[in-house]
Amino acid sequence: MDGKLKLEWAYEHMDVIKNVRERFKSEKPFKGLKIGMALHVEAKTGILALTLRDGGAKVRLASCNPLSTDDSVVKALKDEGLEVYARKGESREEYYENLYKVLEMEPDIIIDDGGDLTTLLHREYADIEILGGNEETTTGVIRLRNMERKGILRFPMFDVNDAKMKHLFDNRYGTGQSTLDGIMTATNLTIAGKTIVVAGYGWCGRGIAMRMRGMGASVIITEIDPIKAIEARMDGFRVMRMIDAIKEADMVITATGMKDVVREEHFIYAKDGCIFANSGHFDNEVSKSDLERLATHKRRVRNYVDEYILDGKKLYLLGEGRLVNLAVGQGHPVEIMDMSFAIQALTAEYIAKNYETLEPKVYPVPNDIDYRVAEIKLHSMNIQIDELTEEQKRYLEDWQEGT
Amino acid sequence: MDGKLKLEWAYEHMDVIKNVRERFKSEKPFKGLKIGMALHVEAKTGILALTLRDGGAKVRLASCNPLSTDDSVVKALKDEGLEVYARKGESREEYYENLYKVLEMEPDIIIDDGGDLTTLLHREYADIEILGGNEETTTGVIRLRNMERKGILRFPMFDVNDAKMKHLFDNRYGTGQSTLDGIMTATNLTIAGKTIVVAGYGWCGRGIAMRMRGMGASVIITEIDPIKAIEARMDGFRVMRMIDAIKEADMVITATGMKDVVREEHFIYAKDGCIFANSGHFDNEVSKSDLERLATHKRRVRNYVDEYILDGKKLYLLGEGRLVNLAVGQGHPVEIMDMSFAIQALTAEYIAKNYETLEPKVYPVPNDIDYRVAEIKLHSMNIQIDELTEEQKRYLEDWQEGT
Amino acid sequence: MDGKLKLEWAYEHMDVIKNVRERFKSEKPFKGLKIGMALHVEAKTGILALTLRDGGAKVRLASCNPLSTDDSVVKALKDEGLEVYARKGESREEYYENLYKVLEMEPDIIIDDGGDLTTLLHREYADIEILGGNEETTTGVIRLRNMERKGILRFPMFDVNDAKMKHLFDNRYGTGQSTLDGIMTATNLTIAGKTIVVAGYGWCGRGIAMRMRGMGASVIITEIDPIKAIEARMDGFRVMRMIDAIKEADMVITATGMKDVVREEHFIYAKDGCIFANSGHFDNEVSKSDLERLATHKRRVRNYVDEYILDGKKLYLLGEGRLVNLAVGQGHPVEIMDMSFAIQALTAEYIAKNYETLEPKVYPVPNDIDYRVAEIKLHSMNIQIDELTEEQKRYLEDWQEGT
Amino acid sequence: MDGKLKLEWAYEHMDVIKNVRERFKSEKPFKGLKIGMALHVEAKTGILALTLRDGGAKVRLASCNPLSTDDSVVKALKDEGLEVYARKGESREEYYENLYKVLEMEPDIIIDDGGDLTTLLHREYADIEILGGNEETTTGVIRLRNMERKGILRFPMFDVNDAKMKHLFDNRYGTGQSTLDGIMTATNLTIAGKTIVVAGYGWCGRGIAMRMRGMGASVIITEIDPIKAIEARMDGFRVMRMIDAIKEADMVITATGMKDVVREEHFIYAKDGCIFANSGHFDNEVSKSDLERLATHKRRVRNYVDEYILDGKKLYLLGEGRLVNLAVGQGHPVEIMDMSFAIQALTAEYIAKNYETLEPKVYPVPNDIDYRVAEIKLHSMNIQIDELTEEQKRYLEDWQEGT
Repeated sequence: MDGKLKLEWAYEHMDVIKNVRERFKSEKPFKGLKIGMALHVEAKTGILALTLRDGGAKVRLASCNPLSTDDSVVKALKDEGLEVYARKGESREEYYENLYKVLEMEPDIIIDDGGDLTTLLHREYADIEILGGNEETTTGVIRLRNMERKGILRFPMFDVNDAKMKHLFDNRYGTGQSTLDGIMTATNLTIAGKTIVVAGYGWCGRGIAMRMRGMGASVIITEIDPIKAIEARMDGFRVMRMIDAIKEADMVITATGMKDVVREEHFIYAKDGCIFANSGHFDNEVSKSDLERLATHKRRVRNYVDEYILDGKKLYLLGEGRLVNLAVGQGHPVEIMDMSFAIQALTAEYIAKNYETLEPKVYPVPNDIDYRVAEIKLHSMNIQIDELTEEQKRYLEDWQEGT
Repeated sequence: MDGKLKLEWAYEHMDVIKNVRERFKSEKPFKGLKIGMALHVEAKTGILALTLRDGGAKVRLASCNPLSTDDSVVKALKDEGLEVYARKGESREEYYENLYKVLEMEPDIIIDDGGDLTTLLHREYADIEILGGNEETTTGVIRLRNMERKGILRFPMFDVNDAKMKHLFDNRYGTGQSTLDGIMTATNLTIAGKTIVVAGYGWCGRGIAMRMRGMGASVIITEIDPIKAIEARMDGFRVMRMIDAIKEADMVITATGMKDVVREEHFIYAKDGCIFANSGHFDNEVSKSDLERLATHKRRVRNYVDEYILDGKKLYLLGEGRLVNLAVGQGHPVEIMDMSFAIQALTAEYIAKNYETLEPKVYPVPNDIDYRVAEIKLHSMNIQIDELTEEQKRYLEDWQEGT
Repeated sequence: MDGKLKLEWAYEHMDVIKNVRERFKSEKPFKGLKIGMALHVEAKTGILALTLRDGGAKVRLASCNPLSTDDSVVKALKDEGLEVYARKGESREEYYENLYKVLEMEPDIIIDDGGDLTTLLHREYADIEILGGNEETTTGVIRLRNMERKGILRFPMFDVNDAKMKHLFDNRYGTGQSTLDGIMTATNLTIAGKTIVVAGYGWCGRGIAMRMRGMGASVIITEIDPIKAIEARMDGFRVMRMIDAIKEADMVITATGMKDVVREEHFIYAKDGCIFANSGHFDNEVSKSDLERLATHKRRVRNYVDEYILDGKKLYLLGEGRLVNLAVGQGHPVEIMDMSFAIQALTAEYIAKNYETLEPKVYPVPNDIDYRVAEIKLHSMNIQIDELTEEQKRYLEDWQEGT
Repeated sequence: MDGKLKLEWAYEHMDVIKNVRERFKSEKPFKGLKIGMALHVEAKTGILALTLRDGGAKVRLASCNPLSTDDSVVKALKDEGLEVYARKGESREEYYENLYKVLEMEPDIIIDDGGDLTTLLHREYADIEILGGNEETTTGVIRLRNMERKGILRFPMFDVNDAKMKHLFDNRYGTGQSTLDGIMTATNLTIAGKTIVVAGYGWCGRGIAMRMRGMGASVIITEIDPIKAIEARMDGFRVMRMIDAIKEADMVITATGMKDVVREEHFIYAKDGCIFANSGHFDNEVSKSDLERLATHKRRVRNYVDEYILDGKKLYLLGEGRLVNLAVGQGHPVEIMDMSFAIQALTAEYIAKNYETLEPKVYPVPNDIDYRVAEIKLHSMNIQIDELTEEQKRYLEDWQEGT
């Protein structure tokens, strides 16, 4: 399918970004600034890049994952005059070369997803002056906070992931739907009647669990946090250790941000035919190295499905263990990314306007940005909600009115 | 992806057919018989055709829908020596030519889906002697019953659709999942938060409604049957006339077996951006002719998505109004078709063994076949269930034991 | 609470019966006839009895269960002039004495629930001439069919249970809600996070399972039918034998119509604190006799909760093993019984008008009655549905229109 | 039912409190201290009071709501030697007199629910020296924060409501289940097929919405917060203003903490027969004063159901507009309150040990208390969860490991 049409279709369904872009076109908040981006390069990201450009920025874009690029979109963005360095199926070398390209433009603002660009800036480009940046995902935020704690963070970074209009929707409904989509596309198997283990009951994990149950699966949750474990149980899921869950699993999906969540000790208890997929940022949640080491045979049996033979049983890994929603599918659905990228665009604008007052810390997205995005979105959904009356506002401030 | 691998993957997940095929290989129930098939030609169907061939039959296969063929599977089946006449995107002429090819072999048994092959046999091949046949789907069964009622049915036909192990699973969970899959693949849009109208609350419709709700949609049902309407309402859905529902719809999905369920009077009230998809057998549930007539512009905006401009608003039709799960997606998930096709195979065997006692009527699938399939399936799922004790069996026959 | 108010509240929410009663008042279809009833005597049943009386019948009413009577309603009905013989907490002797009272009036038509009245008529009142009768529940229908098969059924009986407007709603949504209600009232325990075993995946069982899941429980189904077992599994439940399920159960609910579904061999594997409840017609699904025999201590720890001590563990039985929704709660919700009792009233009218043509067989409720009830109900819910156009009606009769 | 048995049953199902109580018995953390409590006085609260007493405290207990007391429990607690001042159906005067009684003991620590006790302490007992206290519910916390902001808070108060192990479970699953229970008990009406409006999509509101949907209702949410409104919509609910929602409502349930959420302008658009219930702390969410003013007639038609006639239509108010789960039902289920009250007990212990370092502020419950409760609870549910390996712990601290 043509990349230009994909961009057009996406834009047609991105009401919040549309609103922001129109304003950016006239206000040019990024005039004179360079923005370096490392995101999954597909249609929705393309719209974000175009929006920033229309806001006056010089934009350069690389991918944050070797497998998630949509080449037709890359072409269409280049036709639009953007500088894009990404290809589906990059080697590790190519992947980093493309990140280098982004840094060579000496960006003023960066937009990162997973933290590879930011890390590179700290390890190898200590001389580039950054006004500030945004980080999109849980994994990247964990890395940022570790850098902040160790006192090595060089510039202000905004934790876009923890904006409500991002994680409540993108991580939960976005990951939920797109993970399902990727798995169905890769396998054509029935979800109903399967026992599916979801590792992690954070926002992503509960999105996946909710959707798998909505499709008729019997879901088991694994967790390391006792409070989330009890929540999962009260939500009607079974909760157990991976070592116990694996014995019943028809499918295992990881969404933890942690590495080696499924590893040798689990593979040996897996049932014949068990399918493994990952929706976390990095491809280390299902230990591919353990799988490779233990397997006596490996072959590709379908697009994005690798078969490993262990002890006479077959285990299947989807999308090489990379986030299955992007490696196999089309990524998060459009309207979800509309909200996430509106947060990105408005936070970038906030940096452009306020960088002088910011310190090298991890900042939350200003509350006001969350609410502006919510209001535009609500309006675009044609939903009206209640407002407090004057008397109710007074009541809210009061403490004396009781029984 | 290679058709041979697709066949292999499907077979790997078709435990019931595997069991039947092994027996057929040794018993050869179809020895000396010719079987003519008109089904959606993709991997699962391929396995059915191979199973019948391994049972001793000479098999010829055409498609029952111009858009649902998987060309790579056609190639793989030909490599296996089967006679296949199908191509994705057939013109109406090609489509019927291929059905003629199947009839030219003068089949003893037919396996039909939707009734086109059977109808052709009655209209143009009155001389071919048929021992009996199977019909797969609701639409075809309605046509058969009308032929039976009018006294023109020439040979025994089995209503495979109404076998429990078929419609309870295939129509409900199969259509539910694959319709969702097709829509997500075609659009990459968010299901959560959408208002989706499902026309028809039969087994297919309730499967779709259940899955759409499971994905976070707010679902409205339209029906013509008051009992099903109340059921839908008690299941938590809103129920209204299409003319009212269309005004709120972000998406409309038809699954009725009836034509013109969505037509001019509805299109004029549809919201800008409304998406139309069909999961019924024929492409006449959403009136394409009305759309074409009313639209001032039409263009393809994505694979399988046509945009129609009416009165300045955009309406989208998926997969040219053909069953979206097959036209866009990969059809029903594998394990579901395993059950449906096991019913097909065992019913064909029943015809081969009992045709001399059968009359030109529409027959139900023998209860025994339903239960044999269920038991093999249950065993393959590794599920054990209770059995009545001797005392309980006596109780079941009793009428005297009360309060 | 006052029985009169209960009747008034029920009637206020019984739109279908209201419609039927108004017509009965003027048409008097039961003029000169005596109707003997054995139903759970509470407010909704009271309205049915009054409706039949207003239709011209002389009505006498006893209970079909020793524990399910609402004494305040009995009083209110007597105040209305009805002959009612029922008391909450009847001994077995009283229970049968009350049934005798009903038969002593020599009824023309009977309305039975569970089959005790019908059985009595066959065993001890062979001389009473019955025009016909209705049976309300699965258990009673099984008994009737056994009598029919053995050739001893003396008069026509209508299988009200299998009317769509009865079992689809009463057995499923009615039993589902009222079972939950009874259990919550009896225990005040949390449903969310519990492992609940539901025995039987018939209409009642699936109603209970659906509601328990809707409350956050993790549900396990036991079945003896392989097709229902696969359905339950595809609906996302776990399915296993009772002997395996009991080991995980926090609660077991039976809805099978079979006796000894939970018995000694299961109790010994039950967990400490496990709660047993029954929603089937008779109090023999959870074997009380086994419990009594095995227990070293027994005491009542709450209203409707008996504690049995076995091997140092505590097992709890709700409502003495009688249908928990009626023994503990207020029975099915009003609007559900409105539909069931409208079927009862219209079927009784059908008998009054057609008894001369009926034989001593088990009859289904005429389809027309189902649809009349559905249409009144739909209208009362203020729901409008689609109607076929003339062209669509023609299409429905056609067989030629295809691809 | 006997209050002593109720206490026993509750305690039997309160594993976390059981654990805490055993320790308190030996450690006596409250030795020499007086604790004044104002909570809903029923069985679970009784266990908390006994636990504090066993920890060495002198305890005095009043109710925090005039309608929520269980008199049989009051008696049982008095038999245990506790000082309890509460009665179901207190007048406003009695209610405050009982609170005065609690304050007359000059408590060192207070445990409040809704803020009436705390407010009284500030308005009329400025001389009593309080070491610190706990507040149970959202409404009370709002009042506390207003007092803190205005600089008049006299002593440290802990916001128990915002402990994860409290609001995630108590507000959500607790309120969800008990609200349903109260409504079913009060009305005996069918939930399935109803249109139910839930005002507020906070933790309580989403618990109620989830459960009502789980029972087959079609749910509409009203909100004032745009982010929560979008969440509700993405969760599959319809979202609109109360003024629009009321026109479709069969039932309205408020859970907002705000007053006059349903008021004159809404009542006039309500449908005939609409039922109003409240699950928020105070009885001002559904404006009873507007109802009283507008109604031409009012009468009690069932226990806890008042009928108001307005303009010829009937509106019903449950439990006099007080929290329906406590006024009508048995309050939150036991295991949920076990967790909430464990938080209360441990926070009271924290105050007893640390009051010297605390200031007159609103404090969050220490994180450590949340996790201790979670771990005891998890253990009592017999659930094991994963632990990070040493390598995973290192990874969690790292920032360099990337693609």
